[in-house]
Amino acid sequence: MMSLAALVAARDAGKATPDLMVALCRDAIAREDGAVKAFAHVAEDPVITSSGPLAGIAIGVKDIFDSFDQPTAYGSLAYAAHQPAVDAAIIDMARRRGATIIGKTATTEFAFFHPAETVNPHNPAHTPGGSSSGSAAAIAAGMIPAAIGTQTGGSVVRPASFCGVAGYKPSFRLLPATGMKHFAPSLDTVGLFAASVSDVALLAELLTGRDLSAASVDPAKIRIGLYRCSELETADPEMRDALDRAADNAAEAGFDVGEIAEPEAMAQARQAHSIIQDHEAGLVCGPDLARFRDQMSPRLIEAIERGQAIAPATYDEARRHAKRGRAAARLLFGEVDILLTPSAPGAAPSGLETTGDPRFNKLWTLMGTPALNIPGFTAANGLPLGIQAVARFGQDKALLSTAARLETLF
Amino acid sequence: MMSLAALVAARDAGKATPDLMVALCRDAIAREDGAVKAFAHVAEDPVITSSGPLAGIAIGVKDIFDSFDQPTAYGSLAYAAHQPAVDAAIIDMARRRGATIIGKTATTEFAFFHPAETVNPHNPAHTPGGSSSGSAAAIAAGMIPAAIGTQTGGSVVRPASFCGVAGYKPSFRLLPATGMKHFAPSLDTVGLFAASVSDVALLAELLTGRDLSAASVDPAKIRIGLYRCSELETADPEMRDALDRAADNAAEAGFDVGEIAEPEAMAQARQAHSIIQDHEAGLVCGPDLARFRDQMSPRLIEAIERGQAIAPATYDEARRHAKRGRAAARLLFGEVDILLTPSAPGAAPSGLETTGDPRFNKLWTLMGTPALNIPGFTAANGLPLGIQAVARFGQDKALLSTAARLETLF
Repeated sequence: MMSLAALVAARDAGKATPDLMVALCRDAIAREDGAVKAFAHVAEDPVITSSGPLAGIAIGVKDIFDSFDQPTAYGSLAYAAHQPAVDAAIIDMARRRGATIIGKTATTEFAFFHPAETVNPHNPAHTPGGSSSGSAAAIAAGMIPAAIGTQTGGSVVRPASFCGVAGYKPSFRLLPATGMKHFAPSLDTVGLFAASVSDVALLAELLTGRDLSAASVDPAKIRIGLYRCSELETADPEMRDALDRAADNAAEAGFDVGEIAEPEAMAQARQAHSIIQDHEAGLVCGPDLARFRDQMSPRLIEAIERGQAIAPATYDEARRHAKRGRAAARLLFGEVDILLTPSAPGAAPSGLETTGDPRFNKLWTLMGTPALNIPGFTAANGLPLGIQAVARFGQDKALLSTAARLETLF
Repeated sequence: MMSLAALVAARDAGKATPDLMVALCRDAIAREDGAVKAFAHVAEDPVITSSGPLAGIAIGVKDIFDSFDQPTAYGSLAYAAHQPAVDAAIIDMARRRGATIIGKTATTEFAFFHPAETVNPHNPAHTPGGSSSGSAAAIAAGMIPAAIGTQTGGSVVRPASFCGVAGYKPSFRLLPATGMKHFAPSLDTVGLFAASVSDVALLAELLTGRDLSAASVDPAKIRIGLYRCSELETADPEMRDALDRAADNAAEAGFDVGEIAEPEAMAQARQAHSIIQDHEAGLVCGPDLARFRDQMSPRLIEAIERGQAIAPATYDEARRHAKRGRAAARLLFGEVDILLTPSAPGAAPSGLETTGDPRFNKLWTLMGTPALNIPGFTAANGLPLGIQAVARFGQDKALLSTAARLETLF
């Protein structure tokens, strides 16, 4: 697949019509998706618009977002025939800017852990990650140039890492979440996928009308910190090696690179993530459990019931830990501009029963800070290894710009 | 209608069964609602539960919350026949604690300003306020002991004031909003109605399992501030007089009462409310506009389009003002425990074309602080005048306890 930037340039130069651009994606889906299974649904006769910054751009949308013209199953048997009346806000935003919603991409059940059928395009015996499994795999397989997903624990950055694409979790609430199937509303964050960091930055700009495209950076003015969290020693050796090489390459390119210890308040906040997620899931998925228990996986039922058993006072205490963690993060980003940390413990695990572990992502979802997978490294078995970059809340453009430069060095 | 506390006591003493308690409410609705029009839908055969802290308590729920067993129209022609698959989280929470969802209460269109048919039970020529019109009116007319509503500008506190009941807007996110028809997600706050402050506190406790019921307070240890915002001089003279009497009565009862000037950052935050509300409405109601324009009121269409025209940078600037306002509010609540301010500019306006003005409420919705209407004063025309009490974020129990005491003094 051509890059998003190349497609936009071809369109603007009159070399490719929106119709042709969407047809290319439909052909690629017809050719590739039988094996990858990235799509839960492909639009039969998608609307193609000739105006707008995203005209001709085919976007795959994780199937936990409502769409009025395509079924919306939330990865769940209970919603197999569900047809919402209106689009989610992010889909409407994309359409208003000219995009074609080419299909709904596969997700784990309710964007939790029970996997979809999607495989990793780099090796079908391995998971693509989750929960935005289909969005990441569809990009990696070259079927589409742009996709939308969500992250509550690590569901954008982790599948992007496993599939070797760029996955961008913006600052909390930068993209609207209304019309998504919520799991934990104070964590659920809408994110974007594209083949490269510069492409995902361009996508963010064209989709939102915000100044987010990657700009040139002066490495000497940017302080990069290798984030020494306690989880680091639990990462695979080849992931730790990739992180070290990322730091070395950045230093060679002139960035100001150092090590940053994890503040105690942030380590404590990481522990609070699960309590917050579970309690909120107990509230917001409780109505589904009441109606559709017999169509839910045991793992999802267990999670919702675990959440319902968490006392409000325990939840409140976890939220206070999160608040203190955010205050510590603000201080930390006075010392450093960009943090680097693994996107996942290692490359995609083999087997399709698990979608991998979000242990390197949960903290940043809870902090609300922008985070992004920079693809570029490769494990011995040929699978991708991604490096996660994180910046201060609201510093999305700085993150995207620096990460786009780092990507060229990996 | 008996108070919520009396109903619960009668039930616990074996003097009233849940069946009887719900039947009393159904009778009251059959008798009163033809004139008041508080209900958008009354359940034909509502589920009555014999266990749980809310067993036998009939709750009316604002019809912007999804319910699987009752139609859910969001006050909108476009959704006249809408039937969601599952309950909103707050409805499921109520059912799990034994409540009976006796019906859906009337709301303005999408909880914005286009009014429902509901009238003020104190005088049918006057508005009940909005947007939680039916919830406030159903309580005021004695049809039910408890109701659920929402506030994005002033839609809990204002109708409670106009109808002479207690309306409680909790700290932001204390009650779950998932499954409501959102208008501006960072402002949309779920709230509660009951006949008195002590009843609404009991409702909050029984519904959530949190320690929220009104406790006895020591007036000498509680600093009450009369909030001298610039809007105060725009209030009706009889509302200003009611506020002065409220302060005098509190001082006589031994509370430490003084005046508090409005910090500049909070005055600026108030101005930011409309930009935040409009921009978010443009995003989250954009999908409805795209599909259902011809079934929407001109005023709603205009609001959504106005929101869509607000640039992201303008919205971000408004959010920064809100953030600075919240920091100022935290400092303010170091000097004072409870603020008193009008719940509305005056008593309910005559006519049903308008639901009144939220100018005294918007700031507190944006701040995320708990706020509550204390009923008790009366205008010359016999309509209620409410006093709004506000406390620091998270200090919901202190607010409810102090307000319950103040209510006995008004």
